[in-house]
Amino acid sequence: MKLTILFGGASFEHEISIVSAITLKEKLSGFDLSFIFCDQDHTFYLVEPSKMKAIIFSKGDYKKMPKLSLSSGAFIQKSMFSSVNHNNTVLNLIHGADGEDGTIASLLDFFSINYIGPRTDASVFSYDKRYTKWLCEAKGIKSVDYEILNKNEHKDTSIDYPFIIKPARLGSSIGVSIVRDDSQLDYALDTGFEYDNSLLVEPFIEGVKEYNLAGYMADDELYYSIVEEPQKEEFLDFEKKYMDFSRSEQVLKADITQELEDKLKVNFEKIYKGLFEGALIRCDFFVVNGEVLLNEINPIPGSMANYLFKDFKKSIESLSNSLPNNKKVKTTYDYIHSISSAKGK
Amino acid sequence: MKLTILFGGASFEHEISIVSAITLKEKLSGFDLSFIFCDQDHTFYLVEPSKMKAIIFSKGDYKKMPKLSLSSGAFIQKSMFSSVNHNNTVLNLIHGADGEDGTIASLLDFFSINYIGPRTDASVFSYDKRYTKWLCEAKGIKSVDYEILNKNEHKDTSIDYPFIIKPARLGSSIGVSIVRDDSQLDYALDTGFEYDNSLLVEPFIEGVKEYNLAGYMADDELYYSIVEEPQKEEFLDFEKKYMDFSRSEQVLKADITQELEDKLKVNFEKIYKGLFEGALIRCDFFVVNGEVLLNEINPIPGSMANYLFKDFKKSIESLSNSLPNNKKVKTTYDYIHSISSAKGK
Repeated sequence: MKLTILFGGASFEHEISIVSAITLKEKLSGFDLSFIFCDQDHTFYLVEPSKMKAIIFSKGDYKKMPKLSLSSGAFIQKSMFSSVNHNNTVLNLIHGADGEDGTIASLLDFFSINYIGPRTDASVFSYDKRYTKWLCEAKGIKSVDYEILNKNEHKDTSIDYPFIIKPARLGSSIGVSIVRDDSQLDYALDTGFEYDNSLLVEPFIEGVKEYNLAGYMADDELYYSIVEEPQKEEFLDFEKKYMDFSRSEQVLKADITQELEDKLKVNFEKIYKGLFEGALIRCDFFVVNGEVLLNEINPIPGSMANYLFKDFKKSIESLSNSLPNNKKVKTTYDYIHSISSAKGK
Repeated sequence: MKLTILFGGASFEHEISIVSAITLKEKLSGFDLSFIFCDQDHTFYLVEPSKMKAIIFSKGDYKKMPKLSLSSGAFIQKSMFSSVNHNNTVLNLIHGADGEDGTIASLLDFFSINYIGPRTDASVFSYDKRYTKWLCEAKGIKSVDYEILNKNEHKDTSIDYPFIIKPARLGSSIGVSIVRDDSQLDYALDTGFEYDNSLLVEPFIEGVKEYNLAGYMADDELYYSIVEEPQKEEFLDFEKKYMDFSRSEQVLKADITQELEDKLKVNFEKIYKGLFEGALIRCDFFVVNGEVLLNEINPIPGSMANYLFKDFKKSIESLSNSLPNNKKVKTTYDYIHSISSAKGK
């Protein structure tokens, strides 16, 4: 099948998206793949599959490649006397800002380009951790307690040490700190506020069990990946965590009871249904005293969590055949006509 | 000052946006205005101010005007041998879908165009009435009780007659019904589900007092309009309600106590702060037994609620001088460099 991988973006996870795209090139071999790179200035480039190497981007060599612009139904490559339409279904693989905050979703929707990825509203609820909490509350999904600290507000948190501080709108451990006592607080706040004006404070739960589950909807049915118990460190720093983005080997199923697996799936379904249609997402859960808590939603997981699926190619293919369709609104001028005729003009 | 009014859009409120734009042309006379029309196919046209007449759009004459495309920092008008950049601050005046659902916000953000209007996340929370309820719950703002009905779910509501049925994602009374007994229910549901797969059911409160308050933030301070008690009918049908969009005469301040006015402002502030910066919004409140309930948020009110402001031009000018700035993310390749050097390539 034909598929265009859209990657890059102006975000702190820019290079991680490049790694993800290179991984998918391998995992989706056999597909008729094309690659579109969005650079930090929001210019789109068509990248030949054979040029999909990290160094092409880090050295800026991509700038010699054909530029693309957005038009109704396609990315367009214009040359002096002709233009070529690239109108495959797009897989939005831009992690972090642009890709996961609703911007790319809106762009592709506006230009009527079919895509795999979260829609605008789903993006808003997963990108900003404050809104993920609101989603949980509205849908009856449990999550870790939290408080919000805003820059320039000088409010103290009432959560006891140790706690974790996270920027509201960044994934990937960027700007995240564990704070164990007063002496660590100022530095953690400064670090967090460097990245966002709002921070979440959550109790740091020692020895928590963590489980990841991915899935997508096709033909009105949810398809789940295996459940993974990710490799556990106190918490992963950016580099370690992002080795994840180049993962391509299928992992082993976590050794958990059927009851717990079912609980994780029930929670996943509550999150996904009615909001994430069109996307393959990964939900990261904590389990504390047998209770399932949502930790975070990855609406565009690293290398699409390929390593959690038994038949990843088939998953992408069936998802791409079940993408939501925006009903085209037919505009009318009835009101203007009726006003004009009432006015006699 | 220079300002570009962006109007039209592929929505049920398309023609209402045209009426709004024509009204603003009059209300902002003295400004150096330009007009960009988005038609139902999402093509942009530059419309000469002298051509800003409803009939130009209803007859399709706009199609003879210059087409514009989006580029970094500007709408671009290309001709055979040259191109002109239109890079004024934009006032997003596209009501309903496209303009109020986050799509236009994302587009303008992506292309680094300054604009007056709700950002993507603010749009998502005001466009979908279900998410407005979540916002209220999270921010401690009271609103009318509600239940959600989804297409194909066959759930009955537990709310007593009379109640109101509204599509989750349409403003302007479109698809809205008051249901007084069983005999009216099926028709109301059919009407609602024609426009949306999710409907809100709310108790219909007889004789409720309604008050509208608009405002915006400039230089970190909130500026409020007068409070209006809108002309009351049981509820306004589309045509009556939309006479509103051509309103240009300043209205009289509602005859309410200072205490109630303060309560309305406190609620407005809770809604606006941290979410609607950059926009001039109108909040419509109900007052029931002295208690203030949010009815709805209009993030792009008809003709920008000009009739509620003492000095509308000055309001638009001060807002446009206080627009949020997207910090540009500087992407790096540190991670790729470190991996490459570890691999020795």
